[in-house]
Amino acid sequence: MVQNKSVTFLKYPQEYPVPGEHFAVETNELHVELKEGDVLLRNLYISLDPYMRGKMRNAKSYTAGFQIGKTMDASGVSEVIESKNATFPVGTVVTGFVGWEQYSVISGAQGLRPIANPRNPKIPLSSYVGVLGMPGLTAYSSLKIIGQPKSGETIFISAASGAVGQIVGQISKRLGLRVVGSAGSDEKVDFLLKELKFDAAFNYKKGSILENLRAAAPEGVDIYFENVGGETLEAALEMMNTHGRIIACGMISVYNTTTPYGVRNLFHIIGKRITIRGFIVSDFAQECGTDFAKDVGSWLANGDIIYKEDIADGIDNAPDAFVGMLQGKNFGKQVVKIADL
Amino acid sequence: MVQNKSVTFLKYPQEYPVPGEHFAVETNELHVELKEGDVLLRNLYISLDPYMRGKMRNAKSYTAGFQIGKTMDASGVSEVIESKNATFPVGTVVTGFVGWEQYSVISGAQGLRPIANPRNPKIPLSSYVGVLGMPGLTAYSSLKIIGQPKSGETIFISAASGAVGQIVGQISKRLGLRVVGSAGSDEKVDFLLKELKFDAAFNYKKGSILENLRAAAPEGVDIYFENVGGETLEAALEMMNTHGRIIACGMISVYNTTTPYGVRNLFHIIGKRITIRGFIVSDFAQECGTDFAKDVGSWLANGDIIYKEDIADGIDNAPDAFVGMLQGKNFGKQVVKIADL
Ligand SMILES: NC(=O)c1ccc[n+]([C@@H]2O[C@H](COP(=O)([O-])OP(=O)(O)OC[C@H]3O[C@@H](n4cnc5c(N)ncnc54)[C@H](OP(=O)(O)O)[C@@H]3O)[C@@H](O)[C@H]2O)c1
Ligand SMILES: NC(=O)c1ccc[n+]([C@@H]2O[C@H](COP(=O)([O-])OP(=O)(O)OC[C@H]3O[C@@H](n4cnc5c(N)ncnc54)[C@H](OP(=O)(O)O)[C@@H]3O)[C@@H](O)[C@H]2O)c1
Repeated sequence: MVQNKSVTFLKYPQEYPVPGEHFAVETNELHVELKEGDVLLRNLYISLDPYMRGKMRNAKSYTAGFQIGKTMDASGVSEVIESKNATFPVGTVVTGFVGWEQYSVISGAQGLRPIANPRNPKIPLSSYVGVLGMPGLTAYSSLKIIGQPKSGETIFISAASGAVGQIVGQISKRLGLRVVGSAGSDEKVDFLLKELKFDAAFNYKKGSILENLRAAAPEGVDIYFENVGGETLEAALEMMNTHGRIIACGMISVYNTTTPYGVRNLFHIIGKRITIRGFIVSDFAQECGTDFAKDVGSWLANGDIIYKEDIADGIDNAPDAFVGMLQGKNFGKQVVKIADL
Repeated sequence: MVQNKSVTFLKYPQEYPVPGEHFAVETNELHVELKEGDVLLRNLYISLDPYMRGKMRNAKSYTAGFQIGKTMDASGVSEVIESKNATFPVGTVVTGFVGWEQYSVISGAQGLRPIANPRNPKIPLSSYVGVLGMPGLTAYSSLKIIGQPKSGETIFISAASGAVGQIVGQISKRLGLRVVGSAGSDEKVDFLLKELKFDAAFNYKKGSILENLRAAAPEGVDIYFENVGGETLEAALEMMNTHGRIIACGMISVYNTTTPYGVRNLFHIIGKRITIRGFIVSDFAQECGTDFAKDVGSWLANGDIIYKEDIADGIDNAPDAFVGMLQGKNFGKQVVKIADL
């Protein structure tokens, strides 16, 4: 009998989720009885993303929450190993929503998309949940639609070395912007400056965020790519220029706390005529999906952009990797490698 | 010799300005020597507006600040009583920027506009600094451009009985919105419900703002017309619907304090895909000025909208009226009547 290790959601956390308490790895025997249209997948990679913390809440959110006692889901890259679906024969490599587990049955193959050339040496499979997947589209679409970037402007990106931030920064450089980033360690800051060629970057854990930002963006900020919220947002508001845009992508600093930081200088929105706009990546998929795949796909293949990933090894490590990512222990896009192709 | 009473700016306040300390009435003799193009005005009304508090700061703002030792300025309605400008002969009634004073010399008649029919019994002169002036244009333009109102939606308006709020509410009713307002006294709430026909209204000083808003807008808020900031903004964010718009017009609750309220639930901007946009009325004057004058002018003349004003009597009372307006003692648009036509 084949065993299937999976991660089960156990309990709603109030602050950081704790492996073993709020979610845990379980092993069950794999019973598979495919119906017409179904496929059985062997999962290769799953993506761990901050939005999953929002699915650990017992409240209505923009995505359906995780179910207590059920396997958590994630976007993944997988191989079809049994099939009753002619579109997805055995051996097809696909992306789509799967479980945090080794094997998933996808009823009707719902939401799966085949990967055309899964052994392309220039495009690692993990890219399909990162730079070529949801985080990449998030960066590409929102920068364009909400940011309305113009050459010569200054963009400030928080969580800049992360899954979304590193793409925002590199696209911004291509567009001729002055690019400033913040991140949570000196090593990440070095990466921003040396590898991604940011114009300035700082470690937000050292010294005043506002003073660091003022030094990094003395002419002010035209676009703030907001990933973290709280004190960093307050500093950005202080430094925004007239008619600045804030791309409200995420506020990870408040996801794991019951006492969120209160932002006190929102009045700048008026005098500086700032626009803040929130979005969920799926809002822009239709409008930007095709251009995104073409542009970012070719930049990546040509080596025009790079993408740093942090790959946890094996499903057993998924819960720790998830909590680590929420705490900034990841360096680059957090994925879990479950198996080789 | 003619005396000219005027209000002089003395000192930057940290919290509420204090008459006599931060600004005071002075009396000087009027010396007038008009140059070619100049006019001498006898001021009839001046407008007292919250933005003036922002001009009492020693910091760069979107408007030039008041100068220590100089007469404060305001938009007003005045009669030309001496003229070296053929466009503005003696007897012309004008609107434009004047001093907080009885008589003003306007060099080159700069910024003055004649009022066509100043004795129109349907249009009191004070309207030109209120419903037909800056506050009216503020309401009309931002509701249209930022609010993008659609019939059937719910709008929530704070400081709803004030200069801007009462117009926003009445235009919103005309557009078929469900209109909810908050104000600082039961008397103001009665006015909103009974005279302006708001669908719901509450006194934000009684009980929880959030619970009051939830009861008043059980289906949530599509447009929030933001005049006050702080706790009211926090409640509005809690109640916003998906794709809601926040028209960031003002945040008066933070103008007179050194310890502004920190807003803790900005993360709703993302999940609910909220757009918050700040503006200054002059941004929209070009685009909306003509339609505004036509629409609001005819609505007012036809009695389709009403406009409540709070008229302080005489320049001596201007400083107290200004502080009172910042504290919510005004009931309707605060103006100062300096003289009869
Ligand atoms: N709107 C959407 O559709 C959408 C889609 C994707 C992602 N997002 C959002 O985008 C943001 C970035 O996501 P990602 O996938 O690119 O993740 P990521 O940046 O790869 O990982 C999360 C990072 O957040 C930083 N962080 C954690 N706690 C923080 C705190 N208290 N203050 C400041 N930074 C903190 C950490 O980096 P440091 O070491 O630098 O602190 C951590 O590495 C998140 O807010 C996420 O929710 C939104
Ligand atoms: N962006 C622009 O171009 C523009 C143009 C005009 C006006 N504005 C802004 O629009 C807002 C309304 O201005 P307005 O001219 O119509 O003034 P208003 O509403 O006629 O007068 C100000 C009102 O603010 C309310 N208020 C004072 N302190 C408050 C507090 N701590 N919390 C809640 N409400 C408080 C009071 O009403 P209550 O009794 O109800 O508390 C007071 O009557 C202001 O924020 C102003 O700065 C902006």
